[in-house]
Amino acid sequence: MTQVISAEWVVPIDGEPIRDGAVAIEDGRIAAVGSRAELGSDVHHAEAVLLPGFVNAHSHLEYAVYAGFGDGLSFGPWILLHMERKGRLRDGDGLEIARLGAAQCLASGITTVADCSFAGHTAAAADELGLRAIVYLEVFGASAEQVDGRFREARARIEPFLSDRVALGISPHAPYTCGPDLYAACLELGLPVATHLAESDEEDEWLRSGTGEWERFAHLLPPAPGTSGIRMLAEHGLLGSSVLAAHCVTVDEEEIALLAEHDVAVAHCPRSNAYLGCGIAPLRELRDAGVRVGLGTDSPASAPSFDLFDELRAAVTVARSRARRPDALLAREALELATLGSAAALGLADEIGSLAPGKRADLCVVSLEGSPYFPVEDPAGAVVFGGSPERVVTTLVDGEARYERGGFEWHELQQKAGAARSRMLRATDSAVIAAVS
Amino acid sequence: MTQVISAEWVVPIDGEPIRDGAVAIEDGRIAAVGSRAELGSDVHHAEAVLLPGFVNAHSHLEYAVYAGFGDGLSFGPWILLHMERKGRLRDGDGLEIARLGAAQCLASGITTVADCSFAGHTAAAADELGLRAIVYLEVFGASAEQVDGRFREARARIEPFLSDRVALGISPHAPYTCGPDLYAACLELGLPVATHLAESDEEDEWLRSGTGEWERFAHLLPPAPGTSGIRMLAEHGLLGSSVLAAHCVTVDEEEIALLAEHDVAVAHCPRSNAYLGCGIAPLRELRDAGVRVGLGTDSPASAPSFDLFDELRAAVTVARSRARRPDALLAREALELATLGSAAALGLADEIGSLAPGKRADLCVVSLEGSPYFPVEDPAGAVVFGGSPERVVTTLVDGEARYERGGFEWHELQQKAGAARSRMLRATDSAVIAAVS
Repeated sequence: MTQVISAEWVVPIDGEPIRDGAVAIEDGRIAAVGSRAELGSDVHHAEAVLLPGFVNAHSHLEYAVYAGFGDGLSFGPWILLHMERKGRLRDGDGLEIARLGAAQCLASGITTVADCSFAGHTAAAADELGLRAIVYLEVFGASAEQVDGRFREARARIEPFLSDRVALGISPHAPYTCGPDLYAACLELGLPVATHLAESDEEDEWLRSGTGEWERFAHLLPPAPGTSGIRMLAEHGLLGSSVLAAHCVTVDEEEIALLAEHDVAVAHCPRSNAYLGCGIAPLRELRDAGVRVGLGTDSPASAPSFDLFDELRAAVTVARSRARRPDALLAREALELATLGSAAALGLADEIGSLAPGKRADLCVVSLEGSPYFPVEDPAGAVVFGGSPERVVTTLVDGEARYERGGFEWHELQQKAGAARSRMLRATDSAVIAAVS
Repeated sequence: MTQVISAEWVVPIDGEPIRDGAVAIEDGRIAAVGSRAELGSDVHHAEAVLLPGFVNAHSHLEYAVYAGFGDGLSFGPWILLHMERKGRLRDGDGLEIARLGAAQCLASGITTVADCSFAGHTAAAADELGLRAIVYLEVFGASAEQVDGRFREARARIEPFLSDRVALGISPHAPYTCGPDLYAACLELGLPVATHLAESDEEDEWLRSGTGEWERFAHLLPPAPGTSGIRMLAEHGLLGSSVLAAHCVTVDEEEIALLAEHDVAVAHCPRSNAYLGCGIAPLRELRDAGVRVGLGTDSPASAPSFDLFDELRAAVTVARSRARRPDALLAREALELATLGSAAALGLADEIGSLAPGKRADLCVVSLEGSPYFPVEDPAGAVVFGGSPERVVTTLVDGEARYERGGFEWHELQQKAGAARSRMLRATDSAVIAAVS
């Protein structure tokens, strides 16, 4: 059975925008993309843009209720505050929170997440809510035994939820929390790998010299390798095309060349980097070197939401600010970054990321009703500069509507996850912050 | 008659947030600020933050439908494209557009605009919709006669709309379009003065040397003064506390000192500066030097909307990116910038910008229903990071509700202004762009 969805504008990403365009869907895949006149229409969206669902290249759905904790703190006190608060969660909270996170993603037009998951709850949440996901289970520590223990346990927990739509990955957290042996054990599994690389100056200083602001956390961390995270991984032969690296802000030319040479993909997270004071990643330089780059929201703990539209604007804002050029990142390039760019970064460019026959029917419709961009000259600009979760009319994964404006059970999801947030907030936190500041 | 409005959080700006707070209003002014237990409540807003209305320190309401024109163009072709399109507007369009702009401001919690107005339509629009405004009439040209002619005509047009709420100002556009004689004539009027200063590198190069990318526009401009705009004005004794300067991106230490010495106020417009590729204004340095700084959206032609919440996030994003510090601009500092900071920049800090007894009852209520920030730890952060026009419940000016969610005549305003936008869009534009690129 074929269903045809049409809209005033269709933005396929890998081709020019189509005025009065349509997408035909068959068995969860895209059967055809063309004009409404050609393909007809079962459902038409006037004053709206139909585009591929966003691919969120870096998220932590389990932190959906962590927004607004410790604004302005430097990384050390900030992470300690988060750990302290995380310790107050009850069994079951993690799943409620991940469910809310998955819902917030769908409501922002996101159809796929590359999610670094501490406890694996993302798998159950994505399965239930219909989100496409790679669930990278997080591991920490100096040695490879970390993979055997924690990973086996978490894998068993999420096994029932793995499917054509929900895939398993592994995430050695970062070079400052994981030794090279652990990275090697992770890569040997043959799964997609996600990690955090070159996020901050403080991290870089610690890794290179074992000194700086992070020295006081030395007792919590593996030994500093005496070189940057990227160089450490390169030296041990641990960079490869299965690796997706979040951030890559503090990278020099040589490190960019290493990423390109080993086909490591990068998840660009401009809001997280800005708000935590990490700086602006060299997006243009990474892309010019041939690195596959996608766009990620990171978690509300830093970002501070799964609002992909806000992330698109931040990407444009920081890229143009850094280059002092209005064309450093055009609206249509930002949109490509968050769809086909992210899909390529995840190794899924043949399946998702653009509206092309044969690909998964993962798409979203963004209303322009009452937008200052209507009537539309540049539909990509209208989505990037004028989009918001409130404008998402519907989000489809595998051709099935998984979010519809006004028809979503927000209240229950929010209440359950909100209870977890309440438990995390306590007056004693100010003492925690003071103690570590 | 006293009316008391209460909310789960009241953020007075010049004091600590009040949980379960209330504001008493009498004759359009604030009579008291305190707890709901003390003051009672006629209308209560649960899961919401009540705060002073935003003061938009730099806007052009007459460009409300200019969003998304020429994304990525450099300033020269961009301004020519805008002029070309402006030429297609009909008599009457300007007022319809300014009305929509005023409505969009109110819907974003803005209660006061410092509006640079080409034709003066902002006065009628603000009068009608209940927005507080300083309407700075724009003048251009080498000589003082420009003030006599254009200004007298525009002044007569807007005279009927001037009131306690709508004030007259004058805006010599910029040092590259106005000579020192014109600036002097403007200052002599004794009105509030707004101008554009130090916006881009190209402008700075032209002003200092008469060369660079702008040389090709030399026939349209007064002679280049051979020094920067700020230095030119300082040399002619044309800087003073009545002057509000938009942008101030390309300023060196000496120019910052000149602004501070002469008590010139600055309207910081981070989105506009970022999107046009102008760079990041040195907000911290300006404030540290003692300069009065406010926050402005500029116009949708560059910004690209009157969404003050998006502007707040951009301010935080660029300030922290520039300084590479998470505390370079805290959420509560950003909120202060857009309220009391802007009020001080406009010379209105005794009347507006905070919730204090005796001040005008200009305020807005932002809902946190379903926000990732609820329950709230940091109400300023919840507004800055989680706010949006869709979350504005009501906006009051002089104690009167001028916007209420769901009860606003958007459709008619949008339709009328949208017709003007349609007239401006033409296929021939691509030829215009090509000709000037």
